[in-house]
Parts: sequence; structure tokens; C-alpha cells
Amino acid sequence: MVMDSAGLEVLLEEQCLSLLGGSVLGRIAVTVGAVPAIFPVNYRLLDGQIVFRTSDGTKLHHSAENAVVAFEVDEVDPVTHEGWSVLVVGVARELRDRTLAEAVLGLLPRPWAPGEREHVIAVLPEFVSGRRIMGAA
Amino acid sequence: MVMDSAGLEVLLEEQCLSLLGGSVLGRIAVTVGAVPAIFPVNYRLLDGQIVFRTSDGTKLHHSAENAVVAFEVDEVDPVTHEGWSVLVVGVARELRDRTLAEAVLGLLPRPWAPGEREHVIAVLPEFVSGRRIMGAA
Repeated sequence: MVMDSAGLEVLLEEQCLSLLGGSVLGRIAVTVGAVPAIFPVNYRLLDGQIVFRTSDGTKLHHSAENAVVAFEVDEVDPVTHEGWSVLVVGVARELRDRTLAEAVLGLLPRPWAPGEREHVIAVLPEFVSGRRIMGAA
Repeated sequence: MVMDSAGLEVLLEEQCLSLLGGSVLGRIAVTVGAVPAIFPVNYRLLDGQIVFRTSDGTKLHHSAENAVVAFEVDEVDPVTHEGWSVLVVGVARELRDRTLAEAVLGLLPRPWAPGEREHVIAVLPEFVSGRRIMGAA
């Protein structure tokens, strides 16, 4: 078992990808103007890429495209504080092919709000890391 | 009720601060080197500031200090997809006064890992925004 400098167990990349594939809610960090922001998104891991929907005119849609983004998924028990966290870094790109985008939209969770024209953003993980979080002794 | 461009209800600042004050798990976005990262943290809202612990030698400790950071708290029902999200932007600073830091450490949730010397990072919110997320129609 490999531990990091904070004493947390380091997860293997295959463990990280398995946890990513089994979850549907993540948070993405982007820069809006010069200001950092985090947005929760419903996503799926499809063909090794993190895909999620955005709506026209949103800050997320404008700021994610072609940007290096951080994407994080975690699960932490509120009582025991046990859980895990997986961090992905990669470039976010919009799926421009409308037929492909529509097909992917059909596979994603329903939108939170009845939006305008919807887009699909895909993040190809270039760096994946994860930690298992242990409860307090 | 004010809606944003994605059709989500915009929360008032006092609603955002109330939600922030009632939660204990958030995610912070920082830049490690030139690469964005998100870390989950247990926090408290004390005297209007978001405070959380970090350990010596961690990426979070090195990257948060004096940086403009994004801090996000959300609660989303996995079935209905209803919930809320609050985003804070502010400058993160370490509480250097050791007496004060120790007092704050005593008020924070127990550490996830039995760490080394622990530090307290405080983020004074300069920009607070929030959205209520509605389930799919």
C-alpha cells in the first residue's frame, strides 16, 4: 500500500478509472475570465472519456472548451469520514459532430434544467490520481 | 425568482452563506504548478471565513497559500437530481498565529489521516454565488 505525504493511501490508475466509471456526479474546475470556478456536473465515462452536457450561454460552456480542466469525483461518508477521491486532469473539447453529440446526450442523465440547445463536452484524462480517505483514528 | 442562462434558480448571497454554514464537506480548486486540481476538504464557516486543515508537505498546503481559489459546496439528490450548489471565490491564507490555529483546529472535524504538523487555511469569500438545481421535468 503506497501512502502520500498526508498519510492517505494512493490508488492505482485502474482503481481510479473503476471509481470514475461507477459514479455519475463530479465537479469540474475551470477558469472563467481570470477567476477560478467549480461546477457540479452529471457525467458518464464513455470510451475512456468523461462526457457531460452544457447549455448554450453558460459560463461552463464558454470556459471549458479547449481548456485544461480538473475533474474530481469523491465519496465521503459524513459520519466516519471514510471514502475516496479521484482527480483527473485533461483538455476539455466539445463534440462538434451533431449526430455523435445527440447520441451521447441520449446516454447522459437528464438535464437539471430545461435548457436551450445542448452541447457535449468531453475530457480525455491525461493525468489520473486518487486517494483513499481513512476515518479519524 | 431569478433564473440564470441555463434556467437554474439564482440563490441570494444570504441563502448561499446559510447553505455554506450548514455543510462540512466542500471542494477547493487550486493550481499545482500550472495544472488545475480539486481537493475535497472538511471545513467550517467561522466568523465569515471558510477554514480547513492541511498537513505539511501536501500539494494543497503548498498551492493554497495566498492563491485565489474557488471553493464549492453542493448537495444533489442522486435520484431526483434536485439540490443546490454554492461557489465561493477568495484568497486563501494560512493562519500563522499558532495559538489561533490550534484553537481553530479544535473546532474542525478530525483529520482524515494521522498527519504531521497541521495548518489552518482560511478563505475570506470575496465572491459568493449559488444555484438551486431542479430535477428533470
